[in-house]
Amino acid sequence: MPFQIAIGPNIRKSPFFDATVADGVASFSVYNHMLIPAHFGDPEGEYDRLTGGVVMWDVAAQRQVQLAGPDAGALAQYLTARDIRDTQRGQCKYVPLCDHDGRLINDPVLLKHADDKFWLSVADSDIALWASATAAERGLDVKVSEPDVSPLAVQGPRATPVIADMFGDWVRDLDYFWFREAELDGIPLIVARSGWSKQGGFELYLQDARRGTDLWNHVKAAGEPYDIGPGAPSDVERIESGLLSYGADADKDANPLELGLAKFVNLDCEDDFVGKAALKKIVADGVRRRRVGLILSGGRVPQNAHPCPVCLDGKEVGTMSERAYSPRLKKNIALALLEADISDDQQGLTVDAGNDPRNATIAGLPFC
Amino acid sequence: MPFQIAIGPNIRKSPFFDATVADGVASFSVYNHMLIPAHFGDPEGEYDRLTGGVVMWDVAAQRQVQLAGPDAGALAQYLTARDIRDTQRGQCKYVPLCDHDGRLINDPVLLKHADDKFWLSVADSDIALWASATAAERGLDVKVSEPDVSPLAVQGPRATPVIADMFGDWVRDLDYFWFREAELDGIPLIVARSGWSKQGGFELYLQDARRGTDLWNHVKAAGEPYDIGPGAPSDVERIESGLLSYGADADKDANPLELGLAKFVNLDCEDDFVGKAALKKIVADGVRRRRVGLILSGGRVPQNAHPCPVCLDGKEVGTMSERAYSPRLKKNIALALLEADISDDQQGLTVDAGNDPRNATIAGLPFC
Repeated sequence: MPFQIAIGPNIRKSPFFDATVADGVASFSVYNHMLIPAHFGDPEGEYDRLTGGVVMWDVAAQRQVQLAGPDAGALAQYLTARDIRDTQRGQCKYVPLCDHDGRLINDPVLLKHADDKFWLSVADSDIALWASATAAERGLDVKVSEPDVSPLAVQGPRATPVIADMFGDWVRDLDYFWFREAELDGIPLIVARSGWSKQGGFELYLQDARRGTDLWNHVKAAGEPYDIGPGAPSDVERIESGLLSYGADADKDANPLELGLAKFVNLDCEDDFVGKAALKKIVADGVRRRRVGLILSGGRVPQNAHPCPVCLDGKEVGTMSERAYSPRLKKNIALALLEADISDDQQGLTVDAGNDPRNATIAGLPFC
Repeated sequence: MPFQIAIGPNIRKSPFFDATVADGVASFSVYNHMLIPAHFGDPEGEYDRLTGGVVMWDVAAQRQVQLAGPDAGALAQYLTARDIRDTQRGQCKYVPLCDHDGRLINDPVLLKHADDKFWLSVADSDIALWASATAAERGLDVKVSEPDVSPLAVQGPRATPVIADMFGDWVRDLDYFWFREAELDGIPLIVARSGWSKQGGFELYLQDARRGTDLWNHVKAAGEPYDIGPGAPSDVERIESGLLSYGADADKDANPLELGLAKFVNLDCEDDFVGKAALKKIVADGVRRRRVGLILSGGRVPQNAHPCPVCLDGKEVGTMSERAYSPRLKKNIALALLEADISDDQQGLTVDAGNDPRNATIAGLPFC
């Protein structure tokens, strides 16, 4: 059932909006109160470019929450469960954020610009509100804001030559999860080796919203010899790769220990952080669920369906979040949160997707 | 340009989703991470029902943030700029929420259930995150949550007999902005005399998501003798009525004093609240902008356009937010934030809407 999206002033347009419309965007979602392309009419071709070539994505909706001021570092550490004290200037870190009950409320990438300036490149929840309340109530000397910064992702095995042709060969030496300031045709940018796929690539953090179309067209031109095309973050590829989609996979009670993010939770960090006491209690009581991959029986599953129960002998033992048919694996794959005592070789699991029931077996993540 | 909306597990479905699909919803927006119908294919007919008959809206995306516990009242007062100390059980109040800089971050309706239980029926920002951080950092004994509560609005001059036929004549005596617990066919509900229009009506707060289709169909059946039809919150009617749309009208720096909400800001409240000091400074320094209505020249304006500058002699003096052609007034009307020293009879205002420039004159709110 295709439905239209109502585009109005309550949902922000990305700086790349006009360019994506010119290039044939067909479907949008909404993320951080901003329109984000979902596909350009050829989801399978866009997946093929991501996994075998190079694709460009308007991910401006991945907004930045800037922490600036003398206490910026203290606030950054207090907001995340990961020990970030050794983070260097120019380095990115994946930092789960929890509320005081230890529940995951976002999973941004932290970018450290300086000891007194950090960005949180956030998933879809209003972290600026949450962080500013926390800072103010603790009396920290830090300004929390959303600066004019909008990422454009260039992803896929052929991304590197595109970015090198634009910025120079130094980008080849940029390590994964490091970034550098740059400029292109007078457009102020950050070039980061990162992106929401496991296909490799870069994110260009545009720092002047007026230049969105210019940047889009520069990337498009530089990518032409490499057959670049427009696309959007791929649900299929991210399920194959086991990447978390906050908002899709994490129900509102899920904690990072259940979600497979234990290595980013440092309960022995000397500094306090939001949710630390609650997470310690969760560990002491035993983590109750775990994140797994599922392989589903039957013909191709419909994509973009909503979460549904996973059952064993008629009893609900978990929730399946997103599912998709994987062209690479030629299987139906899905992500789920199951009760922790369900073992990897459990037989008899079923998925109760309304009138489309499936049998399920557990698979490791990433799928391979 | 019609675009599809990508429906996936990252955006929640309302409990009324299936019913609205069955009744022909054509377009959705996203609000509080949930799909909300935008129209059912006949926006003009839906406007006519709202202003001359009765219409039903899925407004489940107007989520509730529940404050429960011994300190719930103290937290509720601390979160809002309005003095709510005299609020009675069963009473609703419109309560602007500000951040520590005095900027509007939401404008919910507060529902007082008991001295230790309140709901904030919120506009489109993650107030549960913000409120829970504030409560935890202040050490307040209150649990902040989002309960299973989803409003269905019945609006228009013929709404009262529909609701009376469903619940009894007592609803006729329910004053504006009061509510009562009720039950219908075993469905637990709140019946409130409220809604996001100036046409009168009720909101039924469904308290069991599994009964969404049942409630929808009960309202549809009860409304049939009154020619009820499905619709959605009306941008045209709300502009005519001068209602604020947080997210559409309020840029991220706007404070409630600029937005015409001064009567809901009680700076002499004995209790402290978030943003009080900042708002006092804003008053002392002079409020810099004010909210006005605009009447625009020329043919029918396109609806759902994005904000654009308002200029005087080529100089930007404000921002126009939403605009629409009013069938009632037979004029193009709009809402804007202008510099405070622009007087009501200012001549020569223009609106810089790209290739569609307009002349503008100031009008009082609501439009009449």
